[in-house]
Amino acid sequence: MQTIPIDDPADPRVAAYLNIRERDLTGREGRFIAEGKVVLNVLFSARRFVPESVLVLENRLAGLAETLSSAPDDLPVYVASAEVIDAIAGFHMHRGILAIGQRRHAESIESILQALPSRALVMVLVGIANHDNVGSMFRNAAAFGCDAVLLDETSCDPLYRKSIRVSVGAALKVPFALGGTGLEIATALEATGFTQLALSPAGEKDITEITRPDRLALYFGAEGPGLPHTILDRIDTARIRMAPGFDSLNVSAASAITLHHFMG
Amino acid sequence: MQTIPIDDPADPRVAAYLNIRERDLTGREGRFIAEGKVVLNVLFSARRFVPESVLVLENRLAGLAETLSSAPDDLPVYVASAEVIDAIAGFHMHRGILAIGQRRHAESIESILQALPSRALVMVLVGIANHDNVGSMFRNAAAFGCDAVLLDETSCDPLYRKSIRVSVGAALKVPFALGGTGLEIATALEATGFTQLALSPAGEKDITEITRPDRLALYFGAEGPGLPHTILDRIDTARIRMAPGFDSLNVSAASAITLHHFMG
Repeated sequence: MQTIPIDDPADPRVAAYLNIRERDLTGREGRFIAEGKVVLNVLFSARRFVPESVLVLENRLAGLAETLSSAPDDLPVYVASAEVIDAIAGFHMHRGILAIGQRRHAESIESILQALPSRALVMVLVGIANHDNVGSMFRNAAAFGCDAVLLDETSCDPLYRKSIRVSVGAALKVPFALGGTGLEIATALEATGFTQLALSPAGEKDITEITRPDRLALYFGAEGPGLPHTILDRIDTARIRMAPGFDSLNVSAASAITLHHFMG
Repeated sequence: MQTIPIDDPADPRVAAYLNIRERDLTGREGRFIAEGKVVLNVLFSARRFVPESVLVLENRLAGLAETLSSAPDDLPVYVASAEVIDAIAGFHMHRGILAIGQRRHAESIESILQALPSRALVMVLVGIANHDNVGSMFRNAAAFGCDAVLLDETSCDPLYRKSIRVSVGAALKVPFALGGTGLEIATALEATGFTQLALSPAGEKDITEITRPDRLALYFGAEGPGLPHTILDRIDTARIRMAPGFDSLNVSAASAITLHHFMG
C-alpha cells in the first residue's frame, strides 16, 4: 500500500474523482466509483473487478487499515484533508472513503450462463432505469443467493455510483450482464433449460403456488409500465398477493419477496 | 374549487411552500407537503387529513382536473408559471403538483389500538429515522393490508415530505401513532392481546415456521444497530432466511417479506 498525500484538488492523479456527484464513470471502459468501507471490502475481495486507486480523508485512514490490508500492495492510496477532498468531489464528503475500480472484462449473457451450476436462480431486469431500484435489487439478489442478474439494454448500469452504494457492494458481487432485448435474454435462457416467470400484478398464478424448478429465471419490469407484452405473452406469469385497494408495490420489494420465496 | 393565479413568489398565500426542499412542515401542528397526482388522490380521499391548499404548475392544471374534482369545493388551488413555482419551491419543480395538508388530530397508541378489529396486523418501527425506509415501509404496509403502524419516539415522522412521496401516499392511508419507547409500545400491545415478533438476523424461528395469530405485531429496527436488547429480551424473535456470506438486508425489504408472509 502506497500512501500518497494530495494537497492540490487539481492534481492529475485524482482527476477520476473530480465532481463525482455530477457525473459517473460508467461507460468508460467499465470504471466505477465505490464509496464507503463496506463497499471497499467487497471490491477488494471481488474476482471480476480490480481496484485502481483509493481516495481517503486523512482522519479516516487509521480506521481503514484492516480494509486496506486486503488490497493489492501496489494500490495507490491518496490521502487528503477535508478541504481538499471536498474540492475534488465537488460537495461535502461526509464519509470520505472512495475508490475507483475497473471491470476486468464485460460479461455477455452467454459467458454468464455458461458459468452457472445445474441448479441456478437468475433475476432478469427489463427497463429498470432507476439507480436506486437496480442497487436495492442487487442487494436482494445477494441476500437470497441469486446466481446472476441479466439486465436488458434499457436498464441502467449496476456500476453507477448510486447503484453500487445502495447495493452495499452487491453490484460488485453478483455476476451480471447488461445488454440485448428482453426477448433475446428469454431466448438465451430458454436454450439453457431455464423455467421463466414474469412477475406481474395480473400474473396467472400466485408465487406461493409454484414449486421451485432447478433452473429458474425471474423477470421484473419497471414500476408503472411493467414488463412489455412481448415478454408477458411469451413466458409464464406470476403475481404477488396484495391487499385490495392499494395494489402498488415497489419493484425492489417485489424482488425481495419473490427471491426469498424461490431461494435455495 | 377556487383557482387563484400567483404571480409573486413572495405572495403570503403560498408562504407554506417556500424553500420546501430545505425544510419540512412536520412538527408544525401536523402539517405536511404532499407531492404528485397519486399522492393528492390519496390525500383527498383520506379521513384523517384535510387538504389546506394546492399549488400547481399552470400547464399541469388540466391534467389534474379529475383529481381536483374530489377535493373540497372551497380548497384554494394556486396556479403559477414554471418560473414562479421554481422561485417559491427553491429548486426546479419538474412535476409541479403540490399540496399542503393537515392532520385532523394526532393519534395516540391507545386511540389506534382501540380502533383495531379482533384480527389485526400491526407494524412497529423502533429507531427507524431514515425517511426513505419509513416511506417504503408504509408502502409495504398498505400493499399487504397492515392495519396500523406504531413508531417509537426515535423513528422519523411519516409525514416528512420524502416519506410521503416514497410511500406513494400510503403514509396518509395507514393509521399510525408516533411516540413512546419501544417498551411502552410492547406493553400496550401485550395488554390488547397481540402476539409480538421481533425481526432479527439472529431470530429463534424462521418466519415461515410461524403460524399467523389473529392479532400480530411485527417489530423492525434500524439497519446496523437493529432492535434494542430491551425489545429482543422481552418478546419472541424471528428471522428471514438468507444466503450465507451476505447477510445484509434492507429493513424495508425485510418488512415486505414478513408482511407478505403474515398478511390476510
